[in-house]
Amino acid sequence: MTVSINGERLWGSLMEMAKIGATAKGGVNRIAFSDLDAQARDLFKTWAEDAGCPVRTDRFGNMFARRPGKNPQAPVVMAGSHLDSQPTGGKFDGAFGVLGALEVIRALNDNAIETDAPIEVVNWTNEEGCLFQPMIGSAVWTGLLPLQDALDMREDREGWTIQEGLERIGYSGQTELMGDYPVACYLEAHIEQGPVLEQAGEYVGIVDATQGQHWYDLTLTGQEAHAGPTPMAARRDALMGMSRIALEVDQIARDHPPGCGTVGRVDVFPNSPNTIPGRVVFSSDLRHPNDAVLSEMDVMFRERASTIAEEMGLNLDLKARTYIPPMPFSQPLADAVQAAAVASGKPWRRMYTGAGHDACNIARFLPTAMIFIPCREGISHNEAEHAEPEHVATGAQVLATTLLAAANGKIDFGISQ
Amino acid sequence: MTVSINGERLWGSLMEMAKIGATAKGGVNRIAFSDLDAQARDLFKTWAEDAGCPVRTDRFGNMFARRPGKNPQAPVVMAGSHLDSQPTGGKFDGAFGVLGALEVIRALNDNAIETDAPIEVVNWTNEEGCLFQPMIGSAVWTGLLPLQDALDMREDREGWTIQEGLERIGYSGQTELMGDYPVACYLEAHIEQGPVLEQAGEYVGIVDATQGQHWYDLTLTGQEAHAGPTPMAARRDALMGMSRIALEVDQIARDHPPGCGTVGRVDVFPNSPNTIPGRVVFSSDLRHPNDAVLSEMDVMFRERASTIAEEMGLNLDLKARTYIPPMPFSQPLADAVQAAAVASGKPWRRMYTGAGHDACNIARFLPTAMIFIPCREGISHNEAEHAEPEHVATGAQVLATTLLAAANGKIDFGISQ
Repeated sequence: MTVSINGERLWGSLMEMAKIGATAKGGVNRIAFSDLDAQARDLFKTWAEDAGCPVRTDRFGNMFARRPGKNPQAPVVMAGSHLDSQPTGGKFDGAFGVLGALEVIRALNDNAIETDAPIEVVNWTNEEGCLFQPMIGSAVWTGLLPLQDALDMREDREGWTIQEGLERIGYSGQTELMGDYPVACYLEAHIEQGPVLEQAGEYVGIVDATQGQHWYDLTLTGQEAHAGPTPMAARRDALMGMSRIALEVDQIARDHPPGCGTVGRVDVFPNSPNTIPGRVVFSSDLRHPNDAVLSEMDVMFRERASTIAEEMGLNLDLKARTYIPPMPFSQPLADAVQAAAVASGKPWRRMYTGAGHDACNIARFLPTAMIFIPCREGISHNEAEHAEPEHVATGAQVLATTLLAAANGKIDFGISQ
Repeated sequence: MTVSINGERLWGSLMEMAKIGATAKGGVNRIAFSDLDAQARDLFKTWAEDAGCPVRTDRFGNMFARRPGKNPQAPVVMAGSHLDSQPTGGKFDGAFGVLGALEVIRALNDNAIETDAPIEVVNWTNEEGCLFQPMIGSAVWTGLLPLQDALDMREDREGWTIQEGLERIGYSGQTELMGDYPVACYLEAHIEQGPVLEQAGEYVGIVDATQGQHWYDLTLTGQEAHAGPTPMAARRDALMGMSRIALEVDQIARDHPPGCGTVGRVDVFPNSPNTIPGRVVFSSDLRHPNDAVLSEMDVMFRERASTIAEEMGLNLDLKARTYIPPMPFSQPLADAVQAAAVASGKPWRRMYTGAGHDACNIARFLPTAMIFIPCREGISHNEAEHAEPEHVATGAQVLATTLLAAANGKIDFGISQ
């Protein structure tokens, strides 16, 4: 059994949705809990109901549009993403995953296809985390974050709580969280937010893992001194120490493909051209999809940073800020996505996600996979964000094929899940 | 003929002067044109008059205490420095040069020594440049900066002009500038503000040149991107480019002793741990006392910076901010200082000044040299600034011996001056 999605209809819905919070430069501004977030939710609800799917809202505002299956007791097959955006966000980040799943429902309706299991299209609350931390909606739904703790979170400037924010926009619901009904699996379609697919000319990324991450905050302390009268041999220059460590972060990543290494934040003190920097505060971020390799990179980084500091007479304060182990997604589900990609006839690759997504929370509890499509120059969180209609259509078609297989019990998730 | 200074009296005067604007941490705060600057000027005037030296003030507030010579027509022998300080400055920066010269006058008086030429002790206005640019007093006196331009300079926050500032503290004088009477030479005693003498265990630095300086403002532009999903090969990381260029600045200096290389200012954009820096703005400062070598260093720097930017796919914008050629001081005057240092029996070296001083302005017009003494850990522009009494006394004795020789026509400045 197959189903064909309507790429033009999906593109039309994406453009219609992008009018809500549209910015002058072609992006969208739909910060979670804003009036524009509410308008986007209302439109999604209308569209879902028009497609015959009643919409429930849970106590954290997550929205679930359910298309019934032949077997109402069968574990639900779920797909979605988020409709909130960064203040200067793009038209596709999140919206593609929600409206792509809605298009699957519409296509099933077009062909009067009834699936065995129910299908739910979900819109997660506050994925972007502009005012709070990101991905709280899925964290609450899965139980990673206690509901009440999340509802009590307070906005910094105006002081309202998330509970109050949800009530204000009319999306404080009453329905159950994850543990209260059986869910078979979760699929999330999304733009890549990186350049890999575009550069390779591929249409689909089958995401079967997350990168792990070691993030440190470092402070190098040397001796602030006048740039003129201080001979090179007498210097303890914290900026030169930072420069050497930064280049090691870069080199360690290159020596362990497909690892990544980034020094994104650097603050220099006193930051005056005429003064040798006495102190530099900076970040180091190493990522790799294999935990053993990541661990090797981490040991190497800490050793080299210490050695450099010692050689240069600098004091190194190294604080571990975050360690997130890599996490595999469901391989059987990714295999099913791959089969759908093969069926699409377009070039694809298996890959991992470097960015965080609600799927990363859900993968800890349920069989999960993601479907990436290229975005122009890898640019995201930016009004210039753009995806090509043919990539959008292919990604949604792969989602449709996989959802149909999952909802008809054609995917064996295996004992590991 | 010899004269012996009184080290204890000089130390006492330094400590007495340091009470004006004394800070809790043992430094001084005597910003130019402040009430405390006026108090320091008043005290200096009283002491100079007590030593039989009438004090004149020129139209820019520079103060000249003259001890007459046997021959009133003989070109004046001049020594001094400045009594203004940084807001959290030290007791010795500037004050040592003024009060050291005053101590020479007192010692000459003690021994009733009459010199052939008059001697003038000078206190330059606004050496530190806390509210305006530094070293304006000597720049105006020598004619480097037009008097009226300098008087019209306006303080940023309160909007008063230097003319008004001088009138307010009662030091807007009427006497002539440099060109209006003959001056033989200028000597300035000062703490080193670097670690060279202290580390070598030397008491006196005979300063016979300035470093030259090439200062650039650089902007490296790459591509801002998400630290997670962007593979190393796809990155154009401006921070890594800056790090490589910074290490070249350091290496070029080390390869050309006694050159110095400093990257003192670095601003990273957007400066977020999770984002590959798309832009870094930074300074590069190369110095060397030999102009040919400095030029070689400069060419090397520009070539390597361009190569690095090209290799890394970064755009490099390189703006020359300052080029100051190295300038030799008067070698005959420095030789006389050296003879005085030898006579002191203490270890000494010939050296150049890395920091700017009024002497650097004056050296362009008159035979000039400086006398450095060690300061603890090379620290200056800091309340912790400290000089040892024995170094202070030795420096003042070397100044006395040299001034006496100069004022008695014992130094042949040669045809080059």
